Amino acid sequence: MSLTEPRSKTAPRSTKAPRPLPPTPEVVLPESRRYRLKNRLLGPPLATDQLEHERLGRPTALAVFASDNLSSSAYASEEILRVLIPAVGVAAFSLLVPLTVAMLVVLFFLILSYRETIKEYPTAGGAYMVTRDNFGLLPAQVAGVALLTDYVLTVAVSVAAGTAALASAFPVFTAYEVPISVAFVVLIAFMNLKGVRESGRVFAVPTYFFIVMMALLIGAGLYQLVTGDLATASETQKGLLHFGSVGDGIFYGATLYVIMHAFASGGAAVTGVEAISNGVPAFKKPEWKNARSTLVVMGSLLGAMFLGLSVLAAHMHVAPFKDGTPTVISEVGRLVFGAGPGGEVLYYALQAATMLILVLAANTSFADFPRLASFHAGDNFMPRQLTKRGHRLVFSNGIIFLAVAAIALLLVTGAKVDKLIPLYAIGVFTSFTMSQAGMAKHHLTKREPHWRRGMFVNVTGAILSFIVLLVVGVTKFTHGAWLIILLVPIMVYGLTRLNKQYEAEAEQLETEAVEACTAPIMRRHVVLVMVARLDQSTARAIQYARTLVPDEMRAVHIAVDRLAAEHLAEEWRRLGLSRIPLELVDCPDRRVARAALEVVASETDGGSEVTVLMPHRIYRRFWHRLLHDQTGDEIARVVGNLPHANVTMVPFHIGESDAITVTPTS
Amino acid sequence: MSLTEPRSKTAPRSTKAPRPLPPTPEVVLPESRRYRLKNRLLGPPLATDQLEHERLGRPTALAVFASDNLSSSAYASEEILRVLIPAVGVAAFSLLVPLTVAMLVVLFFLILSYRETIKEYPTAGGAYMVTRDNFGLLPAQVAGVALLTDYVLTVAVSVAAGTAALASAFPVFTAYEVPISVAFVVLIAFMNLKGVRESGRVFAVPTYFFIVMMALLIGAGLYQLVTGDLATASETQKGLLHFGSVGDGIFYGATLYVIMHAFASGGAAVTGVEAISNGVPAFKKPEWKNARSTLVVMGSLLGAMFLGLSVLAAHMHVAPFKDGTPTVISEVGRLVFGAGPGGEVLYYALQAATMLILVLAANTSFADFPRLASFHAGDNFMPRQLTKRGHRLVFSNGIIFLAVAAIALLLVTGAKVDKLIPLYAIGVFTSFTMSQAGMAKHHLTKREPHWRRGMFVNVTGAILSFIVLLVVGVTKFTHGAWLIILLVPIMVYGLTRLNKQYEAEAEQLETEAVEACTAPIMRRHVVLVMVARLDQSTARAIQYARTLVPDEMRAVHIAVDRLAAEHLAEEWRRLGLSRIPLELVDCPDRRVARAALEVVASETDGGSEVTVLMPHRIYRRFWHRLLHDQTGDEIARVVGNLPHANVTMVPFHIGESDAITVTPTS
Repeated sequence: MSLTEPRSKTAPRSTKAPRPLPPTPEVVLPESRRYRLKNRLLGPPLATDQLEHERLGRPTALAVFASDNLSSSAYASEEILRVLIPAVGVAAFSLLVPLTVAMLVVLFFLILSYRETIKEYPTAGGAYMVTRDNFGLLPAQVAGVALLTDYVLTVAVSVAAGTAALASAFPVFTAYEVPISVAFVVLIAFMNLKGVRESGRVFAVPTYFFIVMMALLIGAGLYQLVTGDLATASETQKGLLHFGSVGDGIFYGATLYVIMHAFASGGAAVTGVEAISNGVPAFKKPEWKNARSTLVVMGSLLGAMFLGLSVLAAHMHVAPFKDGTPTVISEVGRLVFGAGPGGEVLYYALQAATMLILVLAANTSFADFPRLASFHAGDNFMPRQLTKRGHRLVFSNGIIFLAVAAIALLLVTGAKVDKLIPLYAIGVFTSFTMSQAGMAKHHLTKREPHWRRGMFVNVTGAILSFIVLLVVGVTKFTHGAWLIILLVPIMVYGLTRLNKQYEAEAEQLETEAVEACTAPIMRRHVVLVMVARLDQSTARAIQYARTLVPDEMRAVHIAVDRLAAEHLAEEWRRLGLSRIPLELVDCPDRRVARAALEVVASETDGGSEVTVLMPHRIYRRFWHRLLHDQTGDEIARVVGNLPHANVTMVPFHIGESDAITVTPTS
Repeated sequence: MSLTEPRSKTAPRSTKAPRPLPPTPEVVLPESRRYRLKNRLLGPPLATDQLEHERLGRPTALAVFASDNLSSSAYASEEILRVLIPAVGVAAFSLLVPLTVAMLVVLFFLILSYRETIKEYPTAGGAYMVTRDNFGLLPAQVAGVALLTDYVLTVAVSVAAGTAALASAFPVFTAYEVPISVAFVVLIAFMNLKGVRESGRVFAVPTYFFIVMMALLIGAGLYQLVTGDLATASETQKGLLHFGSVGDGIFYGATLYVIMHAFASGGAAVTGVEAISNGVPAFKKPEWKNARSTLVVMGSLLGAMFLGLSVLAAHMHVAPFKDGTPTVISEVGRLVFGAGPGGEVLYYALQAATMLILVLAANTSFADFPRLASFHAGDNFMPRQLTKRGHRLVFSNGIIFLAVAAIALLLVTGAKVDKLIPLYAIGVFTSFTMSQAGMAKHHLTKREPHWRRGMFVNVTGAILSFIVLLVVGVTKFTHGAWLIILLVPIMVYGLTRLNKQYEAEAEQLETEAVEACTAPIMRRHVVLVMVARLDQSTARAIQYARTLVPDEMRAVHIAVDRLAAEHLAEEWRRLGLSRIPLELVDCPDRRVARAALEVVASETDGGSEVTVLMPHRIYRRFWHRLLHDQTGDEIARVVGNLPHANVTMVPFHIGESDAITVTPTS
């Protein structure tokens, strides 16, 4: 290695021969501990071009997109009964089927509406996109935030209901519902961070298993009903007793309000209808046609299961328990399948299927939430970090945020489905309303063939959704809906503030940025070498300084100890570095960073470029660094905030001789 | 402001006229919030040259240096009784005076020994200095660490005893001894951080107040003893009952071991003897003579008070209470002064004086501990930060450390004097022994006039100290002394490791450092501009880059998004910055910092100086910064660890137009 000094204008006149600094050590670049941990936990990193999509046939697509929607049938009938029974007693069982049918009417129009959406927005038909396209960015934030809160609730409700299914089969788990459901969330989040991209077939197992078990349950139940063999819940009637006050009959308490309240609880059944419209591009060609027919199949299945279960529960007088377990579906299953060995097997299979599809439903939120959040962030309404793909190409930050929020909800509500339900439907029906209204506007603007029919469908869908939204908002307000009604506007306000900040920054950063790159340089370039004492690290800084060719260069010593400063000045004279004169700055108040700031600030005035060289000692171990005061770092941090003060850290490695190990942290 | 570009070799050939960057804003340098808070809490900063010393006359010097020593008389007799009574019952009262006299013999020789030290080491006669001078650095660490642990204990014991004095007078405070004593420590620490340098006269008030009250107490008590009017503690005998098992008499349990144990408890009385030897330079001339006579006065006063109180307690049969309050001195005072109104006033005055001198004793540790720690740190055996004087010229770090350690002790022991005493004397007698042995060696080496007499005195002092040390170590071992016996060697080992680390660093940093300053510069200077996107902050970095005159310069873009990278490359071509070609580095694993590290590392090989320019956006508010990913900071941190990679942060201010406010943090 030949060390020459080609550009030096002022060769040192030292009497001693110049001593070389230690030779540049070999650099070793191993992976950081954190990266190795990531690899071990999550698997090898995925390259960006490994991002690809599987195309799904209709049966697989149903399995992938329908779990959220279909799994609602596991708790919807129960939630309706839970509102009715305390108010009207056994009359509740007469009201269950009519209310179920009313909700199915809403479902019917939602299916019709989303058939329109799928056709018109075959690439990205989520509420956020449709609202943004038709009403603009701000309404899209409302729709998006409403959906985001709902994804959080889907995770919490599904996991809580899945845990209830488990605890219904094995009552020993009843006491551990909170830790079990938290563990479910952690597991699902971990799998999603791993970015497990199993083929859609894997999803098919729990979905079809659930459909089969429900078919068996409802089929057997209806057969028993027809033959008159259907058992009634004498034993399980005790569930009724757990409620504090049970009304005497329909004439006493069944006001319209109670019925609307019960109807609102049933609203949870139709959540997840929008899932297919988000995922049209994943279907095999012709995408929109396949998506539409899958949507119809999904709606029909949900309708059949929801209605079937309501009919059975109504006839069997199965009332929900106050604590949530055993669930209504579990009790229905136990009675229909009977106590024989074959019946036992079928019952446990039903519970397993219920738990699996509910956990799968939570899993779909982990795909949807981070993607929707990345849309918000891409439009500058959420922190940029949400657009960043992690180690395994998933939006890790969104996954972690969703998991934390869902766990918080589970902890606060004790993982009880009935406590979560009032928070639930507000968000879904807000986004339904906005999305359908957006579709109506779309028809009105585009006036494509059959636009009037589409218009009728979407306006009806929007109005029905809005009515349900009002019913839910009013009847559930004091039960927790107020929180969402309060939260959504606050969040939307926060997001718009964020957006304003981003836009203002972008305005400032991007306006004529390209032209500015060729702006004239500053009039004068001054280099200041910060010198605390004369040691090898300072020598490195001086060596580096001498490679620079500024208009002016000097060394600055902030003098806290006058004797040391005079000693330094004397050594400096001996050095004979005529190009770098030493300036001593008196610092009687020992505020070194402040003094440095003032020195540099006085130079940055008047169009000068100032380079501040900081000798930067790099210690081998963390505790070695702690043994030294951090004044150098403080100077760098403070001075670096001055305009045109360019702080350069000149590294010097301490405690290493042969090889230097450098690892990045992620 | 004329912006010219005198050194540019390659003028840009852009078709558009070059756009200037925003003009340099005005810089405002207000004080930071933290600094303003410091000013408000602690008062205006003191300049280094305001460090000065007051010269003390003998009466003032006694007040300043004697509080630790004299205040021991407030609890020493009680601690002896506390050991004896459970073992020998009322026979304890016959043993109290002989044991007090035995301890006074030790005190006598210690006073004689320290007279020698003061004469021989008139500038700095502390155990650390004497041991270092005679035995070297390592033994000095032992003596120093022993003393440091003792300063912590002095604070804890004195404050606990002061609180006990308060609670004896006002039993309502008994339940709050821990918070009261913690509050005392916080208050004393705060006053010391303020660096209150009151004249010595302020210290005189509590010291002389205590001396006067003790004189009144002992004088009145002895008078009553002579006239036969001395009350005996019939009422307070109930204190005895609180002990679990009380021995029947001297013949049953008074083994030599119990006597030694009791003697060890009395050892706490002689702590603080060394204080004057530390402070000789503060005396008026002739310093050493004044210091010696003050030492003799202090020793005599302590002897008189300790003995007087022991005689009274022995005759009055005042036994300590198990819970610590009321204290023996409080009971003696109550009985001697009587229940009349005059007696009440005197009693409360006695308690006030006791409390005040004890708090003052704790205060002296706050002067001694940080200074001794700064000696250790100055010799590179403790973290350097301990040598740094704070806002008000005091060693703030030492003060805070002492306060935290003392508070921890108070919390663990429940602020009970008798639980702290077993930890106490080990450290004092270790440092006494080492300091006296050091003096003996000093005499042997110097052989100045009368060295044989001095030799005899110091050898006797050393042997007596060592015997007491052994007695304390053995008899108190299981009561807590084991902790100190374990802690001191561990700490000394830690300090020597620290010292080795410092010395190794100094070796590497300082060897031929001056010569290295004129080492040849590197063969080649490469400038790399890290470009994430083309915006005003990048434009600033490019503007700065163009003021540099390296051998090679290029821009580097780590390409996570290929489309964005190609767009950037196209813009770059349009720019026509022929001097700064753009290099695109593919980064399929999205680990930007790692990729940057690899690019820079490949340049640092082979004797090149690499300057890495990082566009550094400076946000106005903390949360604005949080909205952006910190990849730039991560690159700077990681790349900055490479040898010869000089990272320059080129600042660009966002969200500010007219004036920039920069404040240092301390």
